[in-house]
Amino acid sequence: MTARTDASPASRRDFLMKGAAAALTLPVVSALASCNDARAVAAPPAPPAKPAAPAPTARERADQMDAMHEKGIKAFPAKTAGKGNQPMEPRLEKGVKVFDLTCSEIDWEYAPGSHAKAWAYNGQVPGPQIRVREGDRVRVNLTNRLDQSTAIHFHGLELPNDQDGVPFITQPPIKPGETYTYEFTVPNAGSHMYHSHHNSTTQVSKGLLGAFVVEPRDRSREPKVDVDYVMVLNDGPHGFTLNGKGFPATEPIVAKQGQTVRIRFMNEGMMIHPMHLHGMHMTVIAKDGWDQPAPWKCDTLNIAPGERWDVLVKATNPGTWAFHCHILAHAESEHGMFGMVTAFVVEKGKAMA
Amino acid sequence: MTARTDASPASRRDFLMKGAAAALTLPVVSALASCNDARAVAAPPAPPAKPAAPAPTARERADQMDAMHEKGIKAFPAKTAGKGNQPMEPRLEKGVKVFDLTCSEIDWEYAPGSHAKAWAYNGQVPGPQIRVREGDRVRVNLTNRLDQSTAIHFHGLELPNDQDGVPFITQPPIKPGETYTYEFTVPNAGSHMYHSHHNSTTQVSKGLLGAFVVEPRDRSREPKVDVDYVMVLNDGPHGFTLNGKGFPATEPIVAKQGQTVRIRFMNEGMMIHPMHLHGMHMTVIAKDGWDQPAPWKCDTLNIAPGERWDVLVKATNPGTWAFHCHILAHAESEHGMFGMVTAFVVEKGKAMA
Amino acid sequence: MTARTDASPASRRDFLMKGAAAALTLPVVSALASCNDARAVAAPPAPPAKPAAPAPTARERADQMDAMHEKGIKAFPAKTAGKGNQPMEPRLEKGVKVFDLTCSEIDWEYAPGSHAKAWAYNGQVPGPQIRVREGDRVRVNLTNRLDQSTAIHFHGLELPNDQDGVPFITQPPIKPGETYTYEFTVPNAGSHMYHSHHNSTTQVSKGLLGAFVVEPRDRSREPKVDVDYVMVLNDGPHGFTLNGKGFPATEPIVAKQGQTVRIRFMNEGMMIHPMHLHGMHMTVIAKDGWDQPAPWKCDTLNIAPGERWDVLVKATNPGTWAFHCHILAHAESEHGMFGMVTAFVVEKGKAMA
Repeated sequence: MTARTDASPASRRDFLMKGAAAALTLPVVSALASCNDARAVAAPPAPPAKPAAPAPTARERADQMDAMHEKGIKAFPAKTAGKGNQPMEPRLEKGVKVFDLTCSEIDWEYAPGSHAKAWAYNGQVPGPQIRVREGDRVRVNLTNRLDQSTAIHFHGLELPNDQDGVPFITQPPIKPGETYTYEFTVPNAGSHMYHSHHNSTTQVSKGLLGAFVVEPRDRSREPKVDVDYVMVLNDGPHGFTLNGKGFPATEPIVAKQGQTVRIRFMNEGMMIHPMHLHGMHMTVIAKDGWDQPAPWKCDTLNIAPGERWDVLVKATNPGTWAFHCHILAHAESEHGMFGMVTAFVVEKGKAMA
Repeated sequence: MTARTDASPASRRDFLMKGAAAALTLPVVSALASCNDARAVAAPPAPPAKPAAPAPTARERADQMDAMHEKGIKAFPAKTAGKGNQPMEPRLEKGVKVFDLTCSEIDWEYAPGSHAKAWAYNGQVPGPQIRVREGDRVRVNLTNRLDQSTAIHFHGLELPNDQDGVPFITQPPIKPGETYTYEFTVPNAGSHMYHSHHNSTTQVSKGLLGAFVVEPRDRSREPKVDVDYVMVLNDGPHGFTLNGKGFPATEPIVAKQGQTVRIRFMNEGMMIHPMHLHGMHMTVIAKDGWDQPAPWKCDTLNIAPGERWDVLVKATNPGTWAFHCHILAHAESEHGMFGMVTAFVVEKGKAMA
Repeated sequence: MTARTDASPASRRDFLMKGAAAALTLPVVSALASCNDARAVAAPPAPPAKPAAPAPTARERADQMDAMHEKGIKAFPAKTAGKGNQPMEPRLEKGVKVFDLTCSEIDWEYAPGSHAKAWAYNGQVPGPQIRVREGDRVRVNLTNRLDQSTAIHFHGLELPNDQDGVPFITQPPIKPGETYTYEFTVPNAGSHMYHSHHNSTTQVSKGLLGAFVVEPRDRSREPKVDVDYVMVLNDGPHGFTLNGKGFPATEPIVAKQGQTVRIRFMNEGMMIHPMHLHGMHMTVIAKDGWDQPAPWKCDTLNIAPGERWDVLVKATNPGTWAFHCHILAHAESEHGMFGMVTAFVVEKGKAMA
């Protein structure tokens, strides 16, 4: 079982604007619903005031709303228990890269103070990030600690049929308590995924998913990047999440000015999510692990369920940039930003050529 | 009226895994809700047990769920009454290819044992598959046996305006009992559709739709393929369907190893459907009947309402491969796979080069 | 404050088919629900008839439905109060192009006789269309006459961080009654947008959005077009709208045969909208303001929230062509066409080369 690690306090710098971060002094602030809760849609009822209090003015109501918005943004990146998508080191057994996975039910803090049950590989949502190389021999041992059967489909890998992970078509279901072993030679490079293919509407929504990234045998094919970032989108019982967390518990992407960032978008949800980056464009280089015939540019990339898109961002524009799903209801409510929002931070510095 | 043909018993081989197909011996199986019914979301209540029966263990509940999943998969490809999208031979009248269509209300078995009213061309959902060639002279006689007016729009064909099929803009509506004639020279090649353009939200959802495939005048432009398959997606009152049927009544695509399959996706529904093929990639060659500037590869192709996408699949990887919409809720429930699921079967054999 | 202008009566010609436009003589027509109201889903109850009237026959019911459909189409393009997306001339101050915007709550007639509150820039939904050139110095003064704070994000422009318009990240919110100034040198060409980035799910839905089109410094890069048309899609409290209006109050696109029309699609809503043009194809040339590596053709273009797509249409095919979202429920009900429907009109004439 991989240990859960919390965000390091050192990484919890004030990424966002300092100038506007005036202290919250309004007496009403303590009564406001926390914007940490993506589900909150109404402020709790105020206790009955003894003498008739004057109704708030429009400006006071605006200030109250703004305070909620500010509170969420100031909390970013917020500390929560548990972190998904952590790179996993395989064991080496006679040249085979062995990944031991256990799926089980856990408590998952998907946003600060918001908890739900999750079904997780190695206690993480998304599961551990697996990175291997084209041609590697890989073994995945899955131990099922859930009360349901399960199976793993390696989404995007062109495996031999008996390793494809579809119960009753390519294998029997993996029963509660059982351990099952997949083993194969990695056939094709690219940004792929692994996830349950049994009762999958429930199992994937609840967290049985992870990134499976394959570097090409010939690395000269790859663009040179300074940051290689996987962003898994989901929209199940944990709300609208990036790598298992909703804003302000999402993780910023940080680069020095002049660096190149590769983002591997992977949609494990049920809805499209058109991701919009502020301040810079994205150059799309691959779809489902396959190079596009020619790179093309955009600032809003529509990612459908099951799709993976690889993009490059040249971090030319210094500052902290909003980066969010442009279905606005997945990103902001009256109570402030939540869900599929993070920041792309370009730090001024020596990295610039 | 085209006769309804049922799936030939000979085609109902056991496409799927034999090894895991253990006989269902659990006494509870007969009480399980059938996974044939996409709408079933809960097992029927068990009859009151006289002496207090022990609650099922987690393993027993897992076995029950697995049995439902297995039952659906073992039933595939399931026999149902009626088959849509059947190639239609035109009558030839003085060099004109004449297609006689009648629309009427029928009973439609969209999944085994699941019936609903459909509005159908020639008793089929989708309507008969029309295939002609660029430059052909075509006549379509539509007789309306519905209680509503209707009209046919040839979606994707660049016809003279008066053949475009939009009531009150390009023609009067075709009243109940009337026959109306469209006639035109086929102007452009590609994967197109025909469907109602009157009260269309209802009429298309209920089944007034079909494929209209146009081969180019210059066939040397076409890729050589061994199988040319039309897959019409819909999401109306018959549930999530591929060519009018939900799993396990969907039709497998079968190729010999080494063969090339062309799939013409056509979305006649109201939702996107990102179709995911296991085990092999798809090479996208055309959009809405127009060649893409360069082919590109993927394993999950997002198909929006009204769109057509043509892809090639090189059947390199032997086995039975799941092929489904990756909005998982369109493909699998607690009761097993349903809706937009089929199989792509690659048979080992001499066809391989 | 920009004056509201109504559609000129001269432009309200009968764009659509004349032949089928038989006078409505059925006595029941006056009792039919207007198809102007996108929300209408049922005809109002008929007053109790004194003697028992015979039930309408199927043909009579078909005629009634057809009459509703015809009425909507005959009304197109229908006159409504207010027009959005009007080109705005800047003031010039020492070489700076200055745009003065005021946001306020207004009444908005989004379809004939259908009114709702809107939050609008300069009394328009979409706000005034801003057109500038790469390298221009631009100043936008925003005066907030709403009861909420707000801010403008220039979606697609790669601005300095402090002009990006995200409260608490790049600026303080603009409080009710305040005026805030953005100023920048326009960095990149293309079809962009401006909209609220504060409480944006509500504010953008209600109308705080507009087109921001940037011509490239080097105009030789641009295709030569006869008509350059911006089409903003939205799906909020005003229903399914094109440039703030639902059919039949939408605006036709008119070209002479042989002319080239550039359409700049911009999705400011929460849903995808696959726009389908009848009779001619669209050639896609740019995404989010960036040229595609090679143009490609389609007749149905899926536009996701936040995306902009530029297409060219060569107006080769004379006639009045339906042009609509192919999620049919966004375009037609039992009561006729509504929402995201307009017409592309190709007039026969001397323009043809």
